[in-house]
Amino acid sequence: MTADAKAQKRQKFEDVFPKLRQELLDYLAANGMPKDAIEWYGRNLDYNVPGGKLNRGLSVVDTVEILKGRPLTDDEYFHAALLGWCVELLQAFFLVSDDMMDQSITRRGQPCWYRVDGVSYIAINDSFMLEAAIYHLIKSHFRSEPYYVHLLELFHETTFQTEIGQLIDLITAPEDHVDLSKFSLQKHKLIVIYKTAYYSFYLPVALAMYMCGLSHTSTPSTDPYELAKSILVPLGEYFQVQDDFLDYAGTPEQIGKIGTDIIDNKCSWCVNTALTLVTPAQRTVLDENYGRKDAAAEARVKALYEELGIRARYAEYEEAAYKRIMGLIETVPETASADGQAVLKKEVFKSFLDKIYKRQK
Amino acid sequence: MTADAKAQKRQKFEDVFPKLRQELLDYLAANGMPKDAIEWYGRNLDYNVPGGKLNRGLSVVDTVEILKGRPLTDDEYFHAALLGWCVELLQAFFLVSDDMMDQSITRRGQPCWYRVDGVSYIAINDSFMLEAAIYHLIKSHFRSEPYYVHLLELFHETTFQTEIGQLIDLITAPEDHVDLSKFSLQKHKLIVIYKTAYYSFYLPVALAMYMCGLSHTSTPSTDPYELAKSILVPLGEYFQVQDDFLDYAGTPEQIGKIGTDIIDNKCSWCVNTALTLVTPAQRTVLDENYGRKDAAAEARVKALYEELGIRARYAEYEEAAYKRIMGLIETVPETASADGQAVLKKEVFKSFLDKIYKRQK
Ligand SMILES: [Mg+2]
Ligand SMILES: [Mg+2]
Ligand SMILES: [Mg+2]
Ligand SMILES: [Mg+2]
Ligand SMILES: [Mg+2]
Ligand SMILES: [Mg+2]
Repeated sequence: MTADAKAQKRQKFEDVFPKLRQELLDYLAANGMPKDAIEWYGRNLDYNVPGGKLNRGLSVVDTVEILKGRPLTDDEYFHAALLGWCVELLQAFFLVSDDMMDQSITRRGQPCWYRVDGVSYIAINDSFMLEAAIYHLIKSHFRSEPYYVHLLELFHETTFQTEIGQLIDLITAPEDHVDLSKFSLQKHKLIVIYKTAYYSFYLPVALAMYMCGLSHTSTPSTDPYELAKSILVPLGEYFQVQDDFLDYAGTPEQIGKIGTDIIDNKCSWCVNTALTLVTPAQRTVLDENYGRKDAAAEARVKALYEELGIRARYAEYEEAAYKRIMGLIETVPETASADGQAVLKKEVFKSFLDKIYKRQK
Repeated sequence: MTADAKAQKRQKFEDVFPKLRQELLDYLAANGMPKDAIEWYGRNLDYNVPGGKLNRGLSVVDTVEILKGRPLTDDEYFHAALLGWCVELLQAFFLVSDDMMDQSITRRGQPCWYRVDGVSYIAINDSFMLEAAIYHLIKSHFRSEPYYVHLLELFHETTFQTEIGQLIDLITAPEDHVDLSKFSLQKHKLIVIYKTAYYSFYLPVALAMYMCGLSHTSTPSTDPYELAKSILVPLGEYFQVQDDFLDYAGTPEQIGKIGTDIIDNKCSWCVNTALTLVTPAQRTVLDENYGRKDAAAEARVKALYEELGIRARYAEYEEAAYKRIMGLIETVPETASADGQAVLKKEVFKSFLDKIYKRQK
């Protein structure tokens, strides 16, 4: 796709947001809420929901288009985009609260919401109201659909999974207490799958599948949702390993920010891989320098990563992950259904993988 | 009911909690979560969910018993109690986060959860996981019921309403900035209804109604849920006005704590009533002394309340509220349904009103 087509696609998706925002504010107004409360919610939505990369939201629309195999009608587009914005709302709920939990300073190039003048702890309730918006919007637009309850359950379960992932992350890698004995590649995998992969990869595709009328089967072994999950969870894991690697190896121009995982004591793929490779002396270097608010300590960790050949390890990992996921995609059956019902397609997963493989940003 | 029967009732309800707690921990275990994460969630549940008055949870069970008009089977009891515990989980979600937003010190005679050693900001995610438990439990036990989707929607809507109420409260009465011009009895009513009445009064009864198979009608004017709401919302409002009054007028022995509404700049019924009665000079006393962390200032506000006759005003309010709500209860039709289906009963509302009227604690 050309950069222009991409920008157009994004613009079309962004154009749906003001309508959803208005519906939410109208609900407050219809309930007799005072003007300052309605304005506050509007500011919360504007500050925290659009403005990201929108990859997750856009992938709902992309997947619906691939599954239907034709351009969407205006009504179909609106509904797919609404579900996409619900994924973005879920992410906003997580990011607003995560920034508070991590006491972060900036997000998407602006101060974190809780650091905006007058917000402070109100950000907690504001994050709740981003989550609540999801169910309000889905009820308004999908209540009469046979798959309505599946949408609700999918959001519930994905939310719970992400919160579980966040919990393991919080107790494994608190910013103020470094204990690398809690880290392992196994733990990293668990955090990444629960905290990121389900909501970023499985959720958008499963929403699109429901919208296209794909049914569950009675046995998990033939269920298209289980099949999709079995590919998208490893894909999400690969994506996050890459994200962790770029935090260390990417230039600020590439990743659009300065990596801080080492300083922030993050349970990153890099440190976990390093832990499998270190001599006892190198381990001491890691223990003494990882997670310190100190540029010299960070530089010593980076030097150790170079010494241990983390770059080469990552190149190996990426090739293996790519091949493994391609192999999984090959197992997707593509028998057109007799009754013209939508079926899963390899293209859904390939389009994700293509966007991720060897990306530099 | 004797104190003994009451204690037994509470004990029976409390006995259900460990089963639900175990189901939730089993879910984490089945997902391969590390031991420390499972233990953390267990501690979160134990510390924050039981241990309150349990009025809201118990009222689900009470209402199911009244509507069925007979003792419950073990299976019915378990399901009613599960929904009751879901109300308590929702409340725990709100209280854990509210204590953080208010920077409160204690709750139910113990330190607030976020102040427990090692918890701090993790309390935000912990509050999320209390909310998520609701949907996990309801899915496990009500998925095949025809009213399943109604339970989900009811929790969604009530959650949103409570969060909206919390937002108005937070921006109307921030602890660190006193501005009585933002207060009014109208604003107080809105906060009370949204922040308290829906989840504390309407939610438990509506859950019981769904469990007993009461159907919605096609027109709101005959819908039993709308009728219940039209009584329970004023009842909840009356309850909170009483709570506000007792915070000022109740002795610590009566209310089991020392009232701090004046010091905490709460948008209480007392200050809002005072604002309707003050002379300009008295208003200045209020402006200068309300919401200050200062015992002498608090005493001046209390003296003004006595001068203005807030006690007599409350007595009038209570009598009028009682009569008004009794009148609303009289409108509940009690025609036994032809097909033996459960119908709404006056007794549901009377039992609430009796528990509240002229209570001293
Ligand atoms: Mg963070
Ligand atoms: Mg974090
Ligand atoms: Mg990163
Ligand atoms: Mg509070
Ligand atoms: Mg509060
Ligand atoms: Mg009170």
